[in-house]
Formats: sequence, structure tokens, C-alpha cells
Amino acid sequence: MADDSVKQPLFSGSTNPPESSQNLGAAKRRRFRRCKTAPASDTSLEGPDKGRALFPVSSFIFKNFRPSFGQVSLFLFLYLVAGCTCFYLVRDQLVGRTTNGVLDALYFCIVTMTTVGYGDLVPRSTAAKLLACLFVFSGMAFVALFLSKAADYLVEKQEVLIIKAAHLRRKVGDQQMLKEMEGKKIKYKFCTAAAALLVLVIVGTVVLVRVEKLDVVDAFYCVCATITTLGYGDKSFSTAGGRVFAVFWILTSTIFSGQFFLYLAELQTENRQRSLVKWVLTRKMTLVDLEAADLDDDGVVSAAEFVIYKLKEMGKISQENVAMLMEEFENLDVDCSGAISNSDLLLAQ
Amino acid sequence: MADDSVKQPLFSGSTNPPESSQNLGAAKRRRFRRCKTAPASDTSLEGPDKGRALFPVSSFIFKNFRPSFGQVSLFLFLYLVAGCTCFYLVRDQLVGRTTNGVLDALYFCIVTMTTVGYGDLVPRSTAAKLLACLFVFSGMAFVALFLSKAADYLVEKQEVLIIKAAHLRRKVGDQQMLKEMEGKKIKYKFCTAAAALLVLVIVGTVVLVRVEKLDVVDAFYCVCATITTLGYGDKSFSTAGGRVFAVFWILTSTIFSGQFFLYLAELQTENRQRSLVKWVLTRKMTLVDLEAADLDDDGVVSAAEFVIYKLKEMGKISQENVAMLMEEFENLDVDCSGAISNSDLLLAQ
Repeated sequence: MADDSVKQPLFSGSTNPPESSQNLGAAKRRRFRRCKTAPASDTSLEGPDKGRALFPVSSFIFKNFRPSFGQVSLFLFLYLVAGCTCFYLVRDQLVGRTTNGVLDALYFCIVTMTTVGYGDLVPRSTAAKLLACLFVFSGMAFVALFLSKAADYLVEKQEVLIIKAAHLRRKVGDQQMLKEMEGKKIKYKFCTAAAALLVLVIVGTVVLVRVEKLDVVDAFYCVCATITTLGYGDKSFSTAGGRVFAVFWILTSTIFSGQFFLYLAELQTENRQRSLVKWVLTRKMTLVDLEAADLDDDGVVSAAEFVIYKLKEMGKISQENVAMLMEEFENLDVDCSGAISNSDLLLAQ
Repeated sequence: MADDSVKQPLFSGSTNPPESSQNLGAAKRRRFRRCKTAPASDTSLEGPDKGRALFPVSSFIFKNFRPSFGQVSLFLFLYLVAGCTCFYLVRDQLVGRTTNGVLDALYFCIVTMTTVGYGDLVPRSTAAKLLACLFVFSGMAFVALFLSKAADYLVEKQEVLIIKAAHLRRKVGDQQMLKEMEGKKIKYKFCTAAAALLVLVIVGTVVLVRVEKLDVVDAFYCVCATITTLGYGDKSFSTAGGRVFAVFWILTSTIFSGQFFLYLAELQTENRQRSLVKWVLTRKMTLVDLEAADLDDDGVVSAAEFVIYKLKEMGKISQENVAMLMEEFENLDVDCSGAISNSDLLLAQ
């Protein structure tokens, strides 16, 4: 499979092109061989061994544990039907500005589960109050789990883009591009959420001005109070038309605003992480590091050992991760040669 | 430093104790050597090279990028002073149930920044409305960043526990305990947040019954509506005494409830991740895996190569992480021997 890339160095950013320096010929050849094999695990994605490659396998596994967007939509639908039914049954115990029975129940359910809580409709009886408590907690849990799905889905979309980019890199600009994409992943998501939020703010303001006949400041104020789930309730959706719009708009805008602030926090964490990575990369290796990184105790640090040591230093992996896998390695190394070879695989069968 | 652990196998869970099987003596010795060096990087934490060890160094770096809890408290104080001053200046434009001027301004600021938004105090003028919009957005950003700090802090606390445990493991129950702690980290946090929330619910209910003279159902309903930031506003803190309590209680309880739902989402992600890890660990190695994992192309998979391959498969690290570090390795491998040794370090100087 990766035959035409075999002759190219993987890292064009490397300061030593393979054709330079004659006196280190043998070593260069070794380095060259190492370069060749590095992309093997990701070029296998397009080869005939597709089924064995990392990503399809993971997504196969994930399928058994993570509901699809279709399933989440179904859960949401069922949740809303349940909420709507419950609040419709206690509609006489909801006081405030009412319009249509079913619409009010649905609107109240949405206003409650997103924690906007205008208070334009308020439960009066004990039963209705406890029902509202039940629905706000289950609604928040649902939003948290739904949001995590949505975030997962976005991350996956992003990851697909990166994999695609990885396959184009030989043509475009290699590694450098990937690094940049990796670095700006959250920033990109943050901007997407901000743009979506802006559109939702404009749409909400226009509808409130047109349908609810609010002036522009009040409409904007009501929009801000809603998307942040503040919901003072002095301005809200009081007409039937407004509430039909509100049902969709509140759900969407509160989720996007939640994501927006989530990305803000992630952006900060990522910036901190990047500073650490930069520091780890520029830090000089010392004899102490050399000794600590030398997993197989042969006096030198191989490429793989170096990678593990630096990943630990960056906090990306823990000693426990490594220890767990080393234990697994011991089990697989049937002939105890200190490395897994064909013979180990044969012995294991 | 780690002299008394040298003679002990790191992985007591391993199926092959080192003293078994005579015919694999040489291989065993090699395995034994490898076992010895694995904990070197973490036992160095207690040695004289403490300053060089992973964690103190990271925390040194973090200090430059992450404000301490003291700094966060200062920011919070300044934010509240600013909010209180602004809302005090527009106190005539806040309508509803009022008590003391300064207290109302602070109470309104807290109710706004946590997005509870009862609506018992409501801005009437355009200036006050826009000010409320400004404070709810900045407040949410502050909470998101503050929360991420708080979460970071908790994670770190947790990590310290794990490191301590790692140092005790020779006496207690090794690896198995660590694995369990690693696996139940989020579960433990989730339970802590749940317990804190329960205490806050009870305290809030008691105060509302005693100070605000609500009946138990209404008090509980108001507590639920507050900690979830729902804030319908039909029941709220209307007395001066109640509002003094509310200022502290609302801030604490909404943050803990936010964390609670955050951990819920993380718990789900972790469960999914654990299933993947389990699958990756139990999956048989094939010839294709062997070839893909062999970074230095020597025909066999060393322990370090195996660890990297499996970590990639688990999704803990990406191809970009590895590529970036391989590039760095190329630079450090000055004599191009395919490994970093003392001579490389000397050549680099």
C-alpha cells in the first residue's frame, strides 16, 4: 500500500534531509527506515486492511455504547411528549399568562428543562411543583448527556476532517498544517458556536419585535435573558405564535450558548496545555531524563521510549496507562525475548 | 534511589513470576531488567532529583498560566464589587421586592451572574436592562472559567492522592489499587458533588422555612428552582436576612449543581472510554498490528512501541502527537544512531 511514500521523509520539517552528510550513511539509512514505517498505521486506513484500522474499529465499538443522533432525537421527543402530557394533565394548576392548553404545557416543559424559568407560567399545587422539580433535574441531566453527545459528534466531525487532511498532506503542506489544525480545533469550534449564537440572537430579536410587539431593546434584553437561561420573566413569549417559535428557539439557543461557554473553558485549558507542550518540547534532555526514559534499560533511549517519556511529561498519558500496557506486553511476549515478534503470535495460538 | 524495589517485579499481577521456568533464564533476566526501570520515572519523585521530576515541574509551569484559588477569589470579589456598585447606582430602576439598597444590588448581581434570575427584582430602564445583559454574559464566562479552575483544582487534588497511592503501592496492593482509583476517579468526584449538593439542599430548605417562613414543599421547590438556576421567581428570598444567606448559598449551590451535571456527562464518557480500553486490551495482536506498531522497523515490537500503538488505538494520543515528538527525536538524535545516548547529549552541548 504506501509504496510511493516509502521514498519520502515523513517529516519535511526535519533539519537533516536524508541526502545530506556522507559520513553518517549507515545511520541515515536507519533513520530513513524508521521514517518509512511511521505513517504505516494511518495509511492502513485506505488499504485493503481497512476493517483492521483504528478508526473504523473504534467507531464500531462506540456504536454499542453511544446512541446516534437519531436516537438522541427520539429520546428528546419521548421526553417532551412525557413532559407535555404531565403538564397538560396539571394545566389547571399552572397559573399565569395562558394561551393554548397543549402549547402551554410544551412551552412550560421547554422553559423548565432548559432552566430558563421565566415564571410567566408557575405551578400552584404541590403536585405541579414537585413535577416541575422532577422535570428540571431530569431535563438538566438530559441536556448534559445530550450536550456531551453533541460535543462528541462535533469532535468526531472534526476528527474526520483531520484524518482527511492527513491523507492529503503529501500534496499540501505536511505536518505543519496538521499541527495548526490540532492546535486550533477548539478555537474553530468556539467560533462556530459564537456564529450560531449570533444568528440565533438576531432571529430571536426579530421575532420578539414582530410577533410579541416588543421594542428593540426589550426584545434584545429578553433574548439575552433567555439564551443565558436567566429568564427574569418580565419579558417573555405570551402569544400562541410566539410560544410555537419559542419551543424550538429556546431549546436550540440555550444549548448553543451552553456549548459556547464550554468551549471558552476548553480554549483556556488548551492554551495552558499548549504552553506546557511547548515547554516540554523545548526543554533540554539531561542524563537524568535519559535514565528515566530508558524503559528497556539498554542505556539508550529509542524513538518510542522518547515519545512515551515526553507524552508523560506533557500529562497526556499517566504512569498507570503505561504500567497497564506494559503488563499486557509481558503477557503477549510469550517467548520472553523482550519484544513481540511473529514467533510470539504463533506461540500464543 | 529506588534500590530496594529493584529486586521486586513491578507487576505482581503478571502471570509469570520471575523465579519460574528455568529454560527461559536469559530472557527472564532481560524482562527483569525492564521491570526494574519502569517505575524509575515516578520513584524519582521522592529522590534527591525531586526538582527534575514530572509533577513539580508541571506545577511550576502551570503556576505561570493558571491563577491560584486565592487569585480566583480576588477576581470574584472584584467582579461582585463592580456588579454591586453598578446595580446600586441604578437601584431606582430595579423594581420589585426591595429591602436594603446595597444588599439588593449584591443579591441582584448574584441572581444574575448565576443565571437564576428569579425576577423578584427586575430592571426597568434601558440602561439597567443592558447592564443586566452585560453582567449575565460576563458572569457566565466567569463561572465557566472559575468552574474549570475549580474542576482543575479537584482533579489535581485527586492526582495528588493517586501519586501518594503510587508510593504506597509496594506496601498495599500494587497496580490493582491504582487501576481501580484511576477507573473510579470521576465516580468519586460525582459522589462528592452529589453529597455537597444534598447538604446544600437541606440547608437551603431549612433556611427558607425558618427565615422566609415558607412551608416545606414551597421551600424545597424554591431550593430546586434555585440550584438548577431555573428561578421561576414565585418563591424567592424576600427578607433582608434571607438575601444575606442567599448571596452565599446561591453562588455555592449553583456551582456545585453545575459540577454535578458536568461529572454526570464525564462519567458517561469515561464508561465509554473504559469499554474501549477493555476491548483494546483483550483484542489479539495480528501480523498487521505487528507491522503497524513497529516504529523502528526492526521486525519486532518493543515494549515502548507496543505501549504507543495501544495508546493510539485507545484514542488517548493521536498520530500528530507521535509525529511531533518523532520530529523532536530526530533533532535530538545528533549522531543519527536511531537512539539518544550520552554521546548525543554531549554533541548537543
